[in-house]
Amino acid sequence: MRHGFDEIIAKMKGCGMKKVAVAAAQDSAVLEAVKEAKARGIAEAVLVGDEAKIREIAASIDMDLAGYRIIDEPDMIQAALKAVKLAHDGEVDMYMKGLVDTKNFLKSVLDKEAGLRTGAPLSHVAVFDLPQFDRLLFLTDVAFIPYPTLEDKVNIIRNTVPVCRACGIECPKAAVLAAVEVVNPKMPATVEAAELTKMCEEGELAGCVVDGPLSLDLAVDPEAVKHKGASDRKIQGDADMLVFPDIHAGNLVYKCIVHTVPEMKNGCILTGTKVPVILTSRSDSFETKVNSIALAAVVAEEMKKNG
Amino acid sequence: MRHGFDEIIAKMKGCGMKKVAVAAAQDSAVLEAVKEAKARGIAEAVLVGDEAKIREIAASIDMDLAGYRIIDEPDMIQAALKAVKLAHDGEVDMYMKGLVDTKNFLKSVLDKEAGLRTGAPLSHVAVFDLPQFDRLLFLTDVAFIPYPTLEDKVNIIRNTVPVCRACGIECPKAAVLAAVEVVNPKMPATVEAAELTKMCEEGELAGCVVDGPLSLDLAVDPEAVKHKGASDRKIQGDADMLVFPDIHAGNLVYKCIVHTVPEMKNGCILTGTKVPVILTSRSDSFETKVNSIALAAVVAEEMKKNG
Repeated sequence: MRHGFDEIIAKMKGCGMKKVAVAAAQDSAVLEAVKEAKARGIAEAVLVGDEAKIREIAASIDMDLAGYRIIDEPDMIQAALKAVKLAHDGEVDMYMKGLVDTKNFLKSVLDKEAGLRTGAPLSHVAVFDLPQFDRLLFLTDVAFIPYPTLEDKVNIIRNTVPVCRACGIECPKAAVLAAVEVVNPKMPATVEAAELTKMCEEGELAGCVVDGPLSLDLAVDPEAVKHKGASDRKIQGDADMLVFPDIHAGNLVYKCIVHTVPEMKNGCILTGTKVPVILTSRSDSFETKVNSIALAAVVAEEMKKNG
Repeated sequence: MRHGFDEIIAKMKGCGMKKVAVAAAQDSAVLEAVKEAKARGIAEAVLVGDEAKIREIAASIDMDLAGYRIIDEPDMIQAALKAVKLAHDGEVDMYMKGLVDTKNFLKSVLDKEAGLRTGAPLSHVAVFDLPQFDRLLFLTDVAFIPYPTLEDKVNIIRNTVPVCRACGIECPKAAVLAAVEVVNPKMPATVEAAELTKMCEEGELAGCVVDGPLSLDLAVDPEAVKHKGASDRKIQGDADMLVFPDIHAGNLVYKCIVHTVPEMKNGCILTGTKVPVILTSRSDSFETKVNSIALAAVVAEEMKKNG
């Protein structure tokens, strides 16, 4: 079966609506996404923020607030802390950024009392549904960790495996990317990629197959694998997860897909947290915001299933 | 007027065929591209290599060798040195890799006596013609310089400006890319990008507009510029040249476009040399090889015009 965002949304319909707490919900783009997520049966929202402004925006976008729980808190930092606490206490399944700025939103996520720390470092995953692929692609980390160390990359992979699994991929194949597919001591990214491959072989990275260093063509194009005679590699153009050497490479590829591939769909979440965190940016499209809520919802469902 | 590979090829038809010397021409994919370049009126070739094998391959691909100059030299390293000398001596306008491996091909390019050194360091430019853009995009460096220093980036931009100009762009806009569009002292790529911008403002980088650090959306998407309120930037989603922080970022974006954008066209050359150098790889498509010859041909024409 093809796994894409349509399938994720269809899957969510079968397991009941999830609940998302929104930090400083007085943001029209966020409210529109929240409204759509409810209409599609994905999630209902607890709106924490300036109630007067929330009601004003809702009226302007024809959003019926009946049935929504609203917590009036005009101060954005306080609103974030109140919203994250709902997630911390298990009253909601996901936590989403509204009008509060990213810095204060992340502060709430990391708050020692009310936040969502698990001990694992946070990382970001961007999930793409591209028309020419029969599967989802999980890009990490393209937005959160600037220059991941080897240890960071271990955590990035560990954080992303359950996201893949929630989307129907039992044992994801993780390609550790670089400009080249051979280890070159002058290119630290290739050395670390080989190290990660070895750690997976030795059982330190479980529930996935890791192969690297890999160039992008060997990671995603079976034809290129044949052409380059790379039939001995663990990944044969069939990677699910793409692990980037650093944030520049990851972010530039991420934005390249968003801005050059027609009919692409995507969604993003933060992982390594107690519940999935939705941190969309102003420039994300309406559809991306809705997909991000859907992605968080399937991950929340998977986390619930696994206790 | 839209500038794309069709326009480049049309332009070449107006200025007479160029000549390309091929190093170790006994390679069927290379000969097919050379044959097509002649058929399209772009270039004729001098085939240096194992003549028996060249004739055998030519027969198998229905290539009429009448009118081709062939220099019989079965040794691949010697073939490269003889072919590059033709370019060095001005007998041909471009130099192209055949069956000889990349290492020995580059050795011939850099050969002190017969080679194509100009004093400038070499760099690579990948040119993309994407259906959703009204112009060509010049990506550099995605294949040659692993970790360019600030000085290398100056040279990369200087090497690429004439390539843009040869393709009809009088004053190219160069976006120095990073994951973010603001200077962050913890991200050296952003600091160097700001430095390059300043050097251009002060006249050290001529014939182009340089702006950086820029995220990819601000570089190529005017809508994102509006959305982020970046109307003060020199580049408003209208970049021609995309300068990458390092080879991982550049190469991954390059391969991302090749493998995910339907109907993309591309071509690549090495610059900073006495004549344009065509170094296509096994995995490049037939069309990419032909486009690379066409790109080298317009650059050679521009170099001839400017003496």
